[in-house]
Amino acid sequence: MYRSETTVRVRYGETDQMGYVYYGCYAMYYEVARVESLRQLGLTYKSIEAQGIIMPVLENKSKYIAPARYDELLRIVCVIREKPGIRIKFDYEIFNEENKLIHIGETLLVFVDKQSSKPCKPPETMESVLQPFFK
Amino acid sequence: MYRSETTVRVRYGETDQMGYVYYGCYAMYYEVARVESLRQLGLTYKSIEAQGIIMPVLENKSKYIAPARYDELLRIVCVIREKPGIRIKFDYEIFNEENKLIHIGETLLVFVDKQSSKPCKPPETMESVLQPFFK
Amino acid sequence: MYRSETTVRVRYGETDQMGYVYYGCYAMYYEVARVESLRQLGLTYKSIEAQGIIMPVLENKSKYIAPARYDELLRIVCVIREKPGIRIKFDYEIFNEENKLIHIGETLLVFVDKQSSKPCKPPETMESVLQPFFK
Amino acid sequence: MYRSETTVRVRYGETDQMGYVYYGCYAMYYEVARVESLRQLGLTYKSIEAQGIIMPVLENKSKYIAPARYDELLRIVCVIREKPGIRIKFDYEIFNEENKLIHIGETLLVFVDKQSSKPCKPPETMESVLQPFFK
Repeated sequence: MYRSETTVRVRYGETDQMGYVYYGCYAMYYEVARVESLRQLGLTYKSIEAQGIIMPVLENKSKYIAPARYDELLRIVCVIREKPGIRIKFDYEIFNEENKLIHIGETLLVFVDKQSSKPCKPPETMESVLQPFFK
Repeated sequence: MYRSETTVRVRYGETDQMGYVYYGCYAMYYEVARVESLRQLGLTYKSIEAQGIIMPVLENKSKYIAPARYDELLRIVCVIREKPGIRIKFDYEIFNEENKLIHIGETLLVFVDKQSSKPCKPPETMESVLQPFFK
Repeated sequence: MYRSETTVRVRYGETDQMGYVYYGCYAMYYEVARVESLRQLGLTYKSIEAQGIIMPVLENKSKYIAPARYDELLRIVCVIREKPGIRIKFDYEIFNEENKLIHIGETLLVFVDKQSSKPCKPPETMESVLQPFFK
Repeated sequence: MYRSETTVRVRYGETDQMGYVYYGCYAMYYEVARVESLRQLGLTYKSIEAQGIIMPVLENKSKYIAPARYDELLRIVCVIREKPGIRIKFDYEIFNEENKLIHIGETLLVFVDKQSSKPCKPPETMESVLQPFFK
């Protein structure tokens, strides 16, 4: 498995009038965690798209354990448990500044060839950077 | 069960560079569907909050079957299958303009007394409007 | 000049912890007003893009007179004062449910040929529907 | 005057189908720049609110010189030119990774006493950290 950590600072515009982070904002936090997770391996999602592969989301799940609040520096642990095939799954655990687990999520994405609009294998650049974690 | 329908027009700012609705925007569509679902019964979420009850989200799940695109008038079928206790669950099916099912989702929310910060029963106004659907 | 009206219902996710609509959400309301303004003339922005013309924003200005709040049905008066050349300007006045003017805005956009990435004239379909208003 | 710099990484969800950052997302970037600008002086906006002072926006202006794109690490230069009274103005210049100026903006905010809902002076904590820059 491949495990990484990212931090995200809660923006004012991401709170709602309950005083919590709006439940719809977590998907964006997941996106940041996924992208930074890959960047830590030297891979950018931008470069994947530049190779003609897009990664639409198939499934997304979220458990809201406790609210996140304005200006908190959230720590997101992002894990790829299984070697990606034509699909890749990311798991997330989000911790607040008191190091309390406040949120759990997961996202399933599919690799799609932009030309043919058909599912495809991950780009070689991704396979090679992930390989050491899935022996 | 209680079933309702709402339409949502996709905004330009909700698309991403893939040309699809960003996966994180569906949670906002769900919110619109829930709120309009209750409004069709004469109940506003605003009035629930005014009674001192907030409804934070506990769980959210999404299946992305096909992309939604800019300017499409999406039809959201929103269903409450079980009589709400201290929790309430909403199921959604989203159809595009060709009447194709493109998305399935569900959200579990909890009723919380704003003063005590403790889970509570639904407000009586909600129980009374929902009662006919759960005999 | 061409004047139109649209309504927008404030979503929960658009509020912030001040209990107001987040100041960054008005740009999206403007977008809805522009798009519906054209639709009332039988023209969709989608069809403009389909003709190979995109309309990036050059300038945006906002005056926040009074806050908008959750669930309010805002009324947006949208005005095109001058016949569009390679640029088009939209003015907005937003009224709350008490019919109080709470917000003023304006957006300047440019017509750009997607192929050449150069500024261009408005599409003929737009010129023809707007012509009656700028004699 | 007080000048600071912040960086913001463009998120996928902030792009639109034009392939640019959606014009409505810049207000959120401004917010990040303002908040980090104060944090560099040891002051958090969170602590200002905790003192019972909120800072609603009165005016916002944006010039879009060139598009920002996905994954770019934008550099935002944020300047307070005048010593704040009951109002405070922030100017922004946004540079892309090629160090090209792509965007100019400004935001005028007002200090409001949350209890009385009336305009008020900046909190003393802010006055003291800003004082050295406005002699």
